Amino acid sequence: MNLKPIQLFDPKSSTFTYILNVPGSPDAVIIDPVDVHWERDLLHLQRLNLKLTYVMETHTHADHVTSAGKLREMTGAKAVVPSGCGISPADIQLRDGDVIHFGAHEEIRALHTPGHTSGSMSYIWRGNVFTGDALLINGCGRTDFQGGSAEALYDSITKKLFDLNETTLVWPCHDYKGQSVSSIAWEKRHNARVSKCDRAAFVNYMNKLDLPKPKLIDIAVPANHNLGLPHGV
Amino acid sequence: MNLKPIQLFDPKSSTFTYILNVPGSPDAVIIDPVDVHWERDLLHLQRLNLKLTYVMETHTHADHVTSAGKLREMTGAKAVVPSGCGISPADIQLRDGDVIHFGAHEEIRALHTPGHTSGSMSYIWRGNVFTGDALLINGCGRTDFQGGSAEALYDSITKKLFDLNETTLVWPCHDYKGQSVSSIAWEKRHNARVSKCDRAAFVNYMNKLDLPKPKLIDIAVPANHNLGLPHGV
Repeated sequence: MNLKPIQLFDPKSSTFTYILNVPGSPDAVIIDPVDVHWERDLLHLQRLNLKLTYVMETHTHADHVTSAGKLREMTGAKAVVPSGCGISPADIQLRDGDVIHFGAHEEIRALHTPGHTSGSMSYIWRGNVFTGDALLINGCGRTDFQGGSAEALYDSITKKLFDLNETTLVWPCHDYKGQSVSSIAWEKRHNARVSKCDRAAFVNYMNKLDLPKPKLIDIAVPANHNLGLPHGV
Repeated sequence: MNLKPIQLFDPKSSTFTYILNVPGSPDAVIIDPVDVHWERDLLHLQRLNLKLTYVMETHTHADHVTSAGKLREMTGAKAVVPSGCGISPADIQLRDGDVIHFGAHEEIRALHTPGHTSGSMSYIWRGNVFTGDALLINGCGRTDFQGGSAEALYDSITKKLFDLNETTLVWPCHDYKGQSVSSIAWEKRHNARVSKCDRAAFVNYMNKLDLPKPKLIDIAVPANHNLGLPHGV
């Protein structure tokens, strides 16, 4: 049966962190944790009597720093990242189609969805997809740095994510409008960026966005390449 | 099997709204919706292909206005409220122990948990309890208006809510620290307000809080008595 994750929010960067667990098992996975919230997130695990087995990143974030390294240090969880993201200190470098197992029967499948960054991955679990900054609710991530490519993002969204079962719940890495969750069915039909234009129009639109450089990128990217830990540690 | 709800947030009043559904059925219930978010909440139902059957209130809120009346108007859902809250235009007035049925086999059980207000109820569904402003994560609601009673709140929390299965997930109506969920087991052992003191000490503490009057109370309470709709409509 489909199971929902626990969704946590960082109001400063509008980032969602997810805790995945299954009733009856203590094993849990966390996706895209944020540096300043490591204690909050550990407290959630403690309150629900959960043991962290994996901490996973969807990509190398440019707008906030991860707490993956800190959570690994505090819990002994393994750090799991997309192989194309340059996060070398991780324990597991995922390739497209790889599966992470946790609990008694849980499987998280990695789906390479490049475009926001070249290494970005989405993670599929029990009727849910955690899309990182590829597919957002009624939007998508930007494509102008870290190997970003509007062409690749269009293909990732329309050929890979939209190919998932339509009832799949979409849990993004960010939302800026107080929204929580969407579905593949809805995004396929209504997403403002990709549902109403072809590849060329999407690419043209994305390449003309001319967005300001993310404030934290020069700090966040090097930090996130090291799982959010200070370099040299 | 336990199922989690969808959790939505209003940053202005730090209020959580919950959508309850079960994969495979279109029927959904919403608990404690906030006035300004009625379109957001309807969009979530639409995105997940859900049909609203009931809109429920845990109590008459003093810090924000509900959208229950608006959602009823827009969807035909029935408005369900605790019988002791003075919300007379509701369709169903719940008493302690009453059960609301939705979907194929879903049951939401009403548990009268007075103290924050005299009418306050908690709602129990599939291993989750929606505690309103009675039990918060590592805290509890105030007890100084709307028939509030520190004695009653202590009894509601320690004799009723703490009597639920320890694995029950606790989903409050508010959180002010970016937290999402707790468990009965954790709150029983660690809640800062009630786990470490007896009834007399709790009552003494609560009665000395001397909190400022909620800014919106004179607007919110009359509005919420009318399901958030303008009076005379």
